[in-house]
Amino acid sequence: MPDASTPSTPSPTELSEDELRALDAHWRASNYLAVGQIYLMANPLLTEPLRPEHIKPRLLGHWGTSPGLNLVHTHLNRVVKARDLDAICVWGPGHGGPAVLANSWIEGSYTETYPDVTRDEPGMARLFRQFSFPGGVPSHVAPETPGSIHEGGELGYSLSHAYGAALDNPGLLVACVIGDGEAETGPLAASWHGNKFLDPVHDGAVLPILHLNGYKIANPTVLARLPQDELDELLRGYGHEPIHVTGDDPMAVHREMAAALDTALDRIAAFQAAARGWDSDAGGAARPRWPVIVLRTPKGWTGPREVDGLPVEGTWRAHQVPLAEVRDNPDHLRQLEEWLRSYRPAELFDDSGRPRAQVLECVPAGERRLGANPHANGGLLLRDLPLPPLDRFAVPVDTPGGALHEPTRVLGEMLEQVMADTEGRRDFRIVGPDETASNRLQAVYEASGKAWQAEVLKVDENLDRHGRVMEILSEHTCQGWLEGYLLTGRHGLFSCYEAFVHIVDSMVNQHIKWLRTTRRLPWRRPVASLNYLLTSHVWRQDHNGFSHQDPGFIDHVLNKAPEVVRVYLPPDTNTLLSVADHVLSSRDYVNVVVAGKQPSFDWLTMDAARAHCARGAGLWEWAGTEDVRRGPDVVLACAGDVPTLEILAAAQLLRHHLPQLGVRVVNVVDLARLLPKDEHPHGMSDAEYDALFTPDKPVIFAYHGYPWLIHRLAYRREGHVNLHVRGYKEIGTTTTPFDMVLRNDLDRYRLVMDVIDRVPGLGVTAAAVRQRMDEVRLRHHEWIREHGTDLPEVADWSWQG
Amino acid sequence: MPDASTPSTPSPTELSEDELRALDAHWRASNYLAVGQIYLMANPLLTEPLRPEHIKPRLLGHWGTSPGLNLVHTHLNRVVKARDLDAICVWGPGHGGPAVLANSWIEGSYTETYPDVTRDEPGMARLFRQFSFPGGVPSHVAPETPGSIHEGGELGYSLSHAYGAALDNPGLLVACVIGDGEAETGPLAASWHGNKFLDPVHDGAVLPILHLNGYKIANPTVLARLPQDELDELLRGYGHEPIHVTGDDPMAVHREMAAALDTALDRIAAFQAAARGWDSDAGGAARPRWPVIVLRTPKGWTGPREVDGLPVEGTWRAHQVPLAEVRDNPDHLRQLEEWLRSYRPAELFDDSGRPRAQVLECVPAGERRLGANPHANGGLLLRDLPLPPLDRFAVPVDTPGGALHEPTRVLGEMLEQVMADTEGRRDFRIVGPDETASNRLQAVYEASGKAWQAEVLKVDENLDRHGRVMEILSEHTCQGWLEGYLLTGRHGLFSCYEAFVHIVDSMVNQHIKWLRTTRRLPWRRPVASLNYLLTSHVWRQDHNGFSHQDPGFIDHVLNKAPEVVRVYLPPDTNTLLSVADHVLSSRDYVNVVVAGKQPSFDWLTMDAARAHCARGAGLWEWAGTEDVRRGPDVVLACAGDVPTLEILAAAQLLRHHLPQLGVRVVNVVDLARLLPKDEHPHGMSDAEYDALFTPDKPVIFAYHGYPWLIHRLAYRREGHVNLHVRGYKEIGTTTTPFDMVLRNDLDRYRLVMDVIDRVPGLGVTAAAVRQRMDEVRLRHHEWIREHGTDLPEVADWSWQG
Ligand SMILES: Cc1ncc(C[n+]2csc(CCOP(=O)(O)OP(=O)(O)O)c2C)c(N)n1
Ligand SMILES: Cc1ncc(C[n+]2csc(CCOP(=O)(O)OP(=O)(O)O)c2C)c(N)n1
Ligand SMILES: [Mg+2]
Ligand SMILES: [Mg+2]
Repeated sequence: MPDASTPSTPSPTELSEDELRALDAHWRASNYLAVGQIYLMANPLLTEPLRPEHIKPRLLGHWGTSPGLNLVHTHLNRVVKARDLDAICVWGPGHGGPAVLANSWIEGSYTETYPDVTRDEPGMARLFRQFSFPGGVPSHVAPETPGSIHEGGELGYSLSHAYGAALDNPGLLVACVIGDGEAETGPLAASWHGNKFLDPVHDGAVLPILHLNGYKIANPTVLARLPQDELDELLRGYGHEPIHVTGDDPMAVHREMAAALDTALDRIAAFQAAARGWDSDAGGAARPRWPVIVLRTPKGWTGPREVDGLPVEGTWRAHQVPLAEVRDNPDHLRQLEEWLRSYRPAELFDDSGRPRAQVLECVPAGERRLGANPHANGGLLLRDLPLPPLDRFAVPVDTPGGALHEPTRVLGEMLEQVMADTEGRRDFRIVGPDETASNRLQAVYEASGKAWQAEVLKVDENLDRHGRVMEILSEHTCQGWLEGYLLTGRHGLFSCYEAFVHIVDSMVNQHIKWLRTTRRLPWRRPVASLNYLLTSHVWRQDHNGFSHQDPGFIDHVLNKAPEVVRVYLPPDTNTLLSVADHVLSSRDYVNVVVAGKQPSFDWLTMDAARAHCARGAGLWEWAGTEDVRRGPDVVLACAGDVPTLEILAAAQLLRHHLPQLGVRVVNVVDLARLLPKDEHPHGMSDAEYDALFTPDKPVIFAYHGYPWLIHRLAYRREGHVNLHVRGYKEIGTTTTPFDMVLRNDLDRYRLVMDVIDRVPGLGVTAAAVRQRMDEVRLRHHEWIREHGTDLPEVADWSWQG
Repeated sequence: MPDASTPSTPSPTELSEDELRALDAHWRASNYLAVGQIYLMANPLLTEPLRPEHIKPRLLGHWGTSPGLNLVHTHLNRVVKARDLDAICVWGPGHGGPAVLANSWIEGSYTETYPDVTRDEPGMARLFRQFSFPGGVPSHVAPETPGSIHEGGELGYSLSHAYGAALDNPGLLVACVIGDGEAETGPLAASWHGNKFLDPVHDGAVLPILHLNGYKIANPTVLARLPQDELDELLRGYGHEPIHVTGDDPMAVHREMAAALDTALDRIAAFQAAARGWDSDAGGAARPRWPVIVLRTPKGWTGPREVDGLPVEGTWRAHQVPLAEVRDNPDHLRQLEEWLRSYRPAELFDDSGRPRAQVLECVPAGERRLGANPHANGGLLLRDLPLPPLDRFAVPVDTPGGALHEPTRVLGEMLEQVMADTEGRRDFRIVGPDETASNRLQAVYEASGKAWQAEVLKVDENLDRHGRVMEILSEHTCQGWLEGYLLTGRHGLFSCYEAFVHIVDSMVNQHIKWLRTTRRLPWRRPVASLNYLLTSHVWRQDHNGFSHQDPGFIDHVLNKAPEVVRVYLPPDTNTLLSVADHVLSSRDYVNVVVAGKQPSFDWLTMDAARAHCARGAGLWEWAGTEDVRRGPDVVLACAGDVPTLEILAAAQLLRHHLPQLGVRVVNVVDLARLLPKDEHPHGMSDAEYDALFTPDKPVIFAYHGYPWLIHRLAYRREGHVNLHVRGYKEIGTTTTPFDMVLRNDLDRYRLVMDVIDRVPGLGVTAAAVRQRMDEVRLRHHEWIREHGTDLPEVADWSWQG
């Protein structure tokens, strides 16, 4: 491999005048169509003079970014066609929907996807009218947009999506337009370092195109106002070699842009050839300095220069709709007509509204078109994940609570097998913020190391140029990588501390919205679910305390589209295996799995675990004392590993102290089971719910997270008035495990007291038991302050059956 | 001003041997105390050989980062004392609690804050024992830690906190240690650009110290493995001039670190002198290239080199507790004793455990000590914000719904006055992700421009080197700046699109936790509340659609400590003014205010608004039709501007179509009023609730956000079974405003149907009315698809009284 930082690149070919004119025609056509979408609901080809009634009553959309996106699209078309590239593009400023829609319509992928929007005048009229119009299409590069894996509504995620798409797609080029405003966001700023994890052998290439149009909404951008040498230092510091394209003269910019793309692609090809020829396992290959294109063109380029005496083109005023009163202000109407005619539509479209040959000259064919590349509809490429038989990893359970295992450690062994079985296919990855080992999944390293392109020292472990475990201390980047990977048709898992997954609250929102929408689009094929393993959870933050305690991600996702969201709380090792098996084979969901990493009791055999997880919620008969003829006096319900332990310990105390009491123990794995049937696909019917929880007996529910969530799920049930929930009440610090549950009133002694307080008639007769429970709690308080550990009767507790 | 990028700096003085030895003694002492905290619960001075019973039973804490933090603290002490600096330090790797606690104890600020932890042997024993121990102190640089404004539990926010602290504190130096792991996070990566907003005239200085100890938890870090020239390019690209300190020989590193700090501080002083001497309003002054110190020392430096045959010092294995089995493994015990004795404690502490004179030599006095600087306990410095009389901004309301205003625009005028009235004091800032004008607060620019240190072009507006409005397209940075600003005793407001405030879910978690804890610490003085103005809300995303629709931040914060969290939904302009006045004068809260920016009806006069907001929830008698003797047949409740409009329109329809029906209209401004009294300080008693909502009549509640939140707040109320809530059901796209409410069943027609369905007896008699409502909804559907605007009867609706 030659010195990776200065590859020898052939000097790019000069464009002929014809090519140049054809590119410009394509660009003008896409600009025309972008403006048309924002403004017109009739007269699409301007066959008659523009009149107010041709104009939409509400002008909604973003013009400013569109000419830049169109320029990039035009030039990507050229190189894709010339080089027969397999390429997709992630459009960071996704508010430039009109641009991407325009291009899809021109290349024909739009009409193939939506046959009613034909590539002729009626279709153009429809394209214009539907944009940002009731019953029409969204203003952004949404799931509805062919060729997109990225909405760009919430800015910041384009580059990490692009890296995710490129991973394990060695033949793919992922271009990525980054807005200079978007570049200010944290997620984007972090994601530049994706190149430290990109394997030039097994991964494709990412080509960032930083679009310095100078402005965000109403302000200049930080990067656009850096002196150029400072910007270059920054980009080099990010590990890139900048290639600049600057200007406002279209022909000059076309020439520069074509040359820049040729240079960039030649370099990428050279880097890849070098890396792939080389035995890179021998180590020491320098990380390439991948190219980045810096495109500096005016915001709202080719739009109105001035409106009402104020400058617009090249300023922040071009961001949305430059001419705002077209229907009422004849001057604006005239300006709009001039603007549209400046693109010379008659040269671009024939009389029936079809794009002319010159416009189509740069457009590639078939699946090479950016709007038709199957990678952007990843379900087309998705294969089932090979999942090993669970029994190979199941822990033996002779008697409930007879042994202890660390659930995530055992899961790690199963994931190791999945990693091994996808060695050749390379379609499974695990991401995490440097917590894979901390979360005890380290067995996976036996099958795949951690992706790492930098220097490796002797003390390092499991680093691997070709690894498929990805660890960067950025939850945003982990999430973005995984989303990009899944949306292009692969599989994965994100393991994260429970509290800090809130960092990606907003990202998962967008992904859920994406999935909810794609489920309604028949042409979008299902993709693998986004799977979270949340561990190092609220109850076991022994090292870290209060700042690391937050079980609210569950609440957050359960606010979102029920057809997409699933939440699982496996109480032990075998149930975790069963849940993992299920979520890894599911499609189009966001699955949240909360599980423990600390040694905890095994309750269910593998078969029982499978059945229990399939039910989602069920009786644990062996743990209760109910008289089958009478039914229970009280239901002890639990969800989560620690609450399950406390409920079982409470059940045991009750069995001992109040043997005549009929206790039923119910465990809930699948939280959505608690919802009414018509509110969530997993919801129980009222009959099922009443049978399990009773309509009229006290239910003491020990829950892993914020207790009111259970009320929010179950408030419609008849038995809701008898439901008493214990959970995390936002009380925490660095303390012992049992002190955490005790401080939050989730401990076994408190649960027994709850039973006594709530079962009619028990208050008086069980007063002595209640007092004894209270005494243990007081004893605990003194003991831990003296010894720093939990009471022996708690620490050494075991299930006695 | 000399060329800002190459200031002439005096060459730093060489340390004398005595100084050097004293610095090293201080460093050794703090290292000794850090190790002691992690391991020991007795025998603090090692007066006897170490035995297992001296060791804590649970070893919890982070050693790896501690020697680095200690080194920085030692050297900051020296320069603070030598230069009489007013300085604080933000410790990014806040998991290094033992280090910061050790230093506070040495300098005496700890004992002043916690008199029981004396600066002698018994105090040292207590310091050790309490660390990460039940009933003791957290393992992190928590609110309990003197001198801290930053916990560092969730990594990523140190540098934005540091900038926030430096703003408007021209005399302050804010040092900021950034972990090389932390530097990978998005929020940290974005926050480097804070220097583009730092005014060298009115703001203090931020000195970032990038701590390249090479590792995060189990992996090397990206920045530590960059070739040095690439790292330098990155830091220069961030606008900094790097100063390197590298080594593992303590004496050499002390020399280098002292010189580096002197160089950095000299440069800072020169930049500030130049800027402050210069008429910088004349423009054109170059932005200084502020120094950054790159400290490259081993992780776990001075700790065990090897444990059980594996390398530890200088590796990831040093992250937490290097020797894990000290109680049970005699080898580990011996190693620990050697390690502790390697610091030569007898040289550092006298027989009674007091630090010797040499150790204390570098320590500054009084409020100059990092643990005693009042800026780190900002409430000490806080002044009341001057708030103008609201009547000056109030909109006149002759009759409810008689006129329209844009609430946030009017609020902007009030904020303009606050900006103007703090012109000299400079203790109020507004932050936002380039949405101040989009959110219609632009009047504030009349009183203060937008902070901006880069080039200003002719087309730019309101940019100002000395501005106090801060706009960067990073919600994380906005939040971090504001937190740092508030915690150092100033005031502010964060205005944000409602959906995208989820980006800072995790940050606000940490801030709420911080406030919850400080409220229990008598020595921490109250600080100004963190105020959110959320606008461009879910119901009015005309330009953007589904990706911009999410009202869940309210749910998120209402999961947190009730003593800290407040949520307000003012329904019109005057109520928004009243709420703003209240939140801006409050302390120690996180206030979430959701308000509209679109023209909306004025319902209440200023006096009525004040009274209504003080009540938090109340009857709008003028809107109802209830017979005072009979009470209402149905309650129409609402919270939020759009739901209020729909409820009033429904009330008007009912008045017209079903005049005999007794309708009560209730508006809720302060959402926590719905909670039981014992669950939130603002909660209503059951008597109040029943009086307002009735215990037995149907309540149709139109709510701004996710409907189940209202159930979660009110499920304990007697009338809960009759409560029927409408709200946002995660259905949205780019469409008309009324189509949004209709799609989510929150529209006036649906509400009337809800009333008919729920008031006993109405179903049959009002069947015709119900059908008419349904017909309008159908008509709407067709109308918007044809016209693109709402039905005239909706668009032109007004309240008829
Ligand atoms: C995270 C986030 N914050 C705020 C916004 C609101 N917003 C929409 S567009 C925009 C400016 C985008 O600027 P840039 O990335 O430069 O795109 P362009 O100039 O090409 O339109 C902003 C701030 C957003 N979409 N996402
Ligand atoms: C946002 C976030 N993600 C994950 C963690 C878990 N975590 C705790 S410490 C740590 C490594 C920190 O590395 P660095 O910043 O280099 O600190 P140091 O090496 O000085 O300990 C990680 C990943 C965290 N605290 N915050
Ligand atoms: Mg821009
Ligand atoms: Mg580190």
